[in-house]
Amino acid sequence: MYEDRIRHPGLLSKIMSADEAAKLFHNGMRVGMSGFTRAGDAKALPRALAERALQDPLSLTLITGASLGNGSDGLMAEAGVLARRMPFQVDPVLRGKINDGEVMFIDQHLSETAEQLRSGNLAAVDIAVIEATAITAAGAIIPTMSVGNSAAFAQQATQVIIEINLSTPLALEGLHDIYIPQTLPGREPIPLTRVDQRLGSTAIAIDPARIAAIVITDSPDSPSNALPPDAETQAIAGHVIAFLQGEVAAGRMGPELLPLQAGIGTIANAVLHGLIGSPFSNMTMYSEVLQDSAIELLDSGQLAFASASSITLSAAVHQKLMDNIDHYRSKIVLRPQEISNHPEIVRRLGIIALNTALEFDIYGNVNSTHVCGTHMMNGIGGSGDFARNGQVSMFVSKSAAKGGRISSVVPMVSHVDHTEHDVDVLVTEWGYADLRGLAPRERAPLIIERCTHPDYRAQLRAYYDAACQRGGHTPHILQEALSWHTRYQETQSMLAAQ
Amino acid sequence: MYEDRIRHPGLLSKIMSADEAAKLFHNGMRVGMSGFTRAGDAKALPRALAERALQDPLSLTLITGASLGNGSDGLMAEAGVLARRMPFQVDPVLRGKINDGEVMFIDQHLSETAEQLRSGNLAAVDIAVIEATAITAAGAIIPTMSVGNSAAFAQQATQVIIEINLSTPLALEGLHDIYIPQTLPGREPIPLTRVDQRLGSTAIAIDPARIAAIVITDSPDSPSNALPPDAETQAIAGHVIAFLQGEVAAGRMGPELLPLQAGIGTIANAVLHGLIGSPFSNMTMYSEVLQDSAIELLDSGQLAFASASSITLSAAVHQKLMDNIDHYRSKIVLRPQEISNHPEIVRRLGIIALNTALEFDIYGNVNSTHVCGTHMMNGIGGSGDFARNGQVSMFVSKSAAKGGRISSVVPMVSHVDHTEHDVDVLVTEWGYADLRGLAPRERAPLIIERCTHPDYRAQLRAYYDAACQRGGHTPHILQEALSWHTRYQETQSMLAAQ
Repeated sequence: MYEDRIRHPGLLSKIMSADEAAKLFHNGMRVGMSGFTRAGDAKALPRALAERALQDPLSLTLITGASLGNGSDGLMAEAGVLARRMPFQVDPVLRGKINDGEVMFIDQHLSETAEQLRSGNLAAVDIAVIEATAITAAGAIIPTMSVGNSAAFAQQATQVIIEINLSTPLALEGLHDIYIPQTLPGREPIPLTRVDQRLGSTAIAIDPARIAAIVITDSPDSPSNALPPDAETQAIAGHVIAFLQGEVAAGRMGPELLPLQAGIGTIANAVLHGLIGSPFSNMTMYSEVLQDSAIELLDSGQLAFASASSITLSAAVHQKLMDNIDHYRSKIVLRPQEISNHPEIVRRLGIIALNTALEFDIYGNVNSTHVCGTHMMNGIGGSGDFARNGQVSMFVSKSAAKGGRISSVVPMVSHVDHTEHDVDVLVTEWGYADLRGLAPRERAPLIIERCTHPDYRAQLRAYYDAACQRGGHTPHILQEALSWHTRYQETQSMLAAQ
Repeated sequence: MYEDRIRHPGLLSKIMSADEAAKLFHNGMRVGMSGFTRAGDAKALPRALAERALQDPLSLTLITGASLGNGSDGLMAEAGVLARRMPFQVDPVLRGKINDGEVMFIDQHLSETAEQLRSGNLAAVDIAVIEATAITAAGAIIPTMSVGNSAAFAQQATQVIIEINLSTPLALEGLHDIYIPQTLPGREPIPLTRVDQRLGSTAIAIDPARIAAIVITDSPDSPSNALPPDAETQAIAGHVIAFLQGEVAAGRMGPELLPLQAGIGTIANAVLHGLIGSPFSNMTMYSEVLQDSAIELLDSGQLAFASASSITLSAAVHQKLMDNIDHYRSKIVLRPQEISNHPEIVRRLGIIALNTALEFDIYGNVNSTHVCGTHMMNGIGGSGDFARNGQVSMFVSKSAAKGGRISSVVPMVSHVDHTEHDVDVLVTEWGYADLRGLAPRERAPLIIERCTHPDYRAQLRAYYDAACQRGGHTPHILQEALSWHTRYQETQSMLAAQ
């Protein structure tokens, strides 16, 4: 059995249980695992490592593509497996331990991890754990619903553990394009010039002798937890479309726009969903993740092709994709995240970057990661890769949170992930502020009037007016710049007492 | 006369005085001027525009490569010529007007201005003013000591004014490599893979019919105002060398290192100067500016080749370069700043980026631009282009300023230009902190103990320890995070009362 999944005959003997494979790990090892936006993550080993650690303590550095599903990060964190974790996570249990200082979390641009491993800026991984739909006759790994950093991990690790996931159709073969940039010095350009271009192979080639274990699983990916569009996200989508229509009208792009990137999550998904029925046609995506909206846009005929590093869908849309995989495989390619997010490619293609802000300030600085400046939410993800190098960098957010007690627009962000230099357009349900070519003192009134929740506009105007009295290119009152956050900590609301 | 400088015979009739040429400007025009780190700037038109504006008010948007010399920005600002200014400046008079809110200053990554002009994200320039050493028989412009954005301006402007500077030797021809990236969509890779590679032509080709005026000048560039090395900058250089020796010892680079970038100014110049006599050989530079130290390193034989967008030297070293230009022309190339700083190239070549911080915080965020969070110093320049995409991103600073009353290491920077995601190594005269692969709670003790002035270490430890009591991935006490800056504003010292 499994000959269709493990086509290299010498590897059948490597099949073992996850518990047996978990014995290959030793304290202090550096582990690279597949998984990106909870897609294509290893399902059995994280659980087996957590269970083993309860008996036989185990402390590892875990590097992934991005977030894992199935509560895996939480299980491993709870069992003390995770001494260090990078470059991204979304798990509530792990998040708690990061914020308690128990787990050392390194929050990285998603394009950079593989490059840093290869250059030695990060120490190499010892073991790779990669979910696969099959292993070819040559021993190459056919990934599942994400590529992430799997190719970099598999090529670098001394030992490779493969989880064959029987729930993934063999017809995924051909969906992936595995291309790894050359190493320094003297490397050539990455020859990608079109979103639908294929540069490499359909599987991750490695020496089969390094495959130390094969574990059989059949658990599906965790389904997307993006919420359906609501009135506010629909309004945000409307403003994004209005901005893009302006770009087309000004001749800065055609009706096919430029290749679109959209971050993970409810708002970005809703914005893309809002493009269905928009006046744009023959669009393309060059993104890190495809959510339901991307599949719906392909179905509407408005999206011609989608390139990403992972696919994260609701159960229903996932089923549709699987039932019609031969159709979709001609319209989708999954790449290593160092290619999907590569600064060289993002700049060359002229991406429209759409990412979600936790908060932004009156000068256009964006906080994507830290609640009240201290507590990590998920991580910067790929937002910086796209915002810095894209042709147009948009950040979207609802203008308020916690029933209006938090304003997403503040005098000074409590943590900066994207500086004013990298932010072109800010959008909330109230409108958009086009900051291109504007000085800080021009941005502030625009952001206050166009993007801020009406309950907070007078309060922001008062801050800005008082700050201007003190002068400066970027006026601030340092004693009050973070007072909205401390007021929230003290009174559970950013609203000033009347 | 001037036939050797103006080789297109039809253009000799375009010679006019700067005052006449200044009449070509109208209110509201957008002007692109040559000049980068006070090298290769137009000398006559800025003065003529300022003089004209005193009689006949004139308000312009001025875009340059980077900073102008000769007090030109100050003269124009004083005369009210500068309504808007981008992407960089260093002039004290202009700085005052920016901080007073009189001049709208847009602080940009130096790689991005030309790209944004071409894409339409910034409105096109109407007039270009370019300093040249000569005009070829075909009407192409041979630049002087910088390329900057001159090619982009000259190709886009409706009218081009050329300042022929007779003090520049004709032998500068061949020093420059003019290559402009293709426009969207469908552009190809930029084929540069070696620092000494030439991609384009030695002059800026334009339709001679757009040359509206030629002005003859003979004023030299303003000499470099970098200060000579002192004990502190020598100590910084020593720590940089120690770090790089560690990289060589670890096998992450060879004794030729990776291509070096160094920002403008005293500290970066001193650090490069410190490499003379270091154990590194056959080094290369891929930078935006070459200062005295680069020429000295070429002379020492340790630097094999230097690529940049401008050359800014002291009078003595400038004279040596001019006296031996045929020799140096084989070891130096000047490129458009969108190529010298291009993210695609910076990432591909694996640059070691060395830039100066105004201040940095205990988590590795860097402020390059704003004094006490509000007042613009010069601008971000190319530091972000190199820090984000380079292989190793180093920031250097003296640990204290104003006789010890300002600590360059603070709890939270008052403005963020480079986020923790983009900063690998911090260096002061006390030592270096290698932040690669470290979480915020690991970075803070290292930065405090290795980089902070001893007078401020206990104070920083106390802040960090108290912040950790409150928890968080990046511990802070928001009420106190900016208190060092407000204390300085109130007491003229960041030192806490004993």
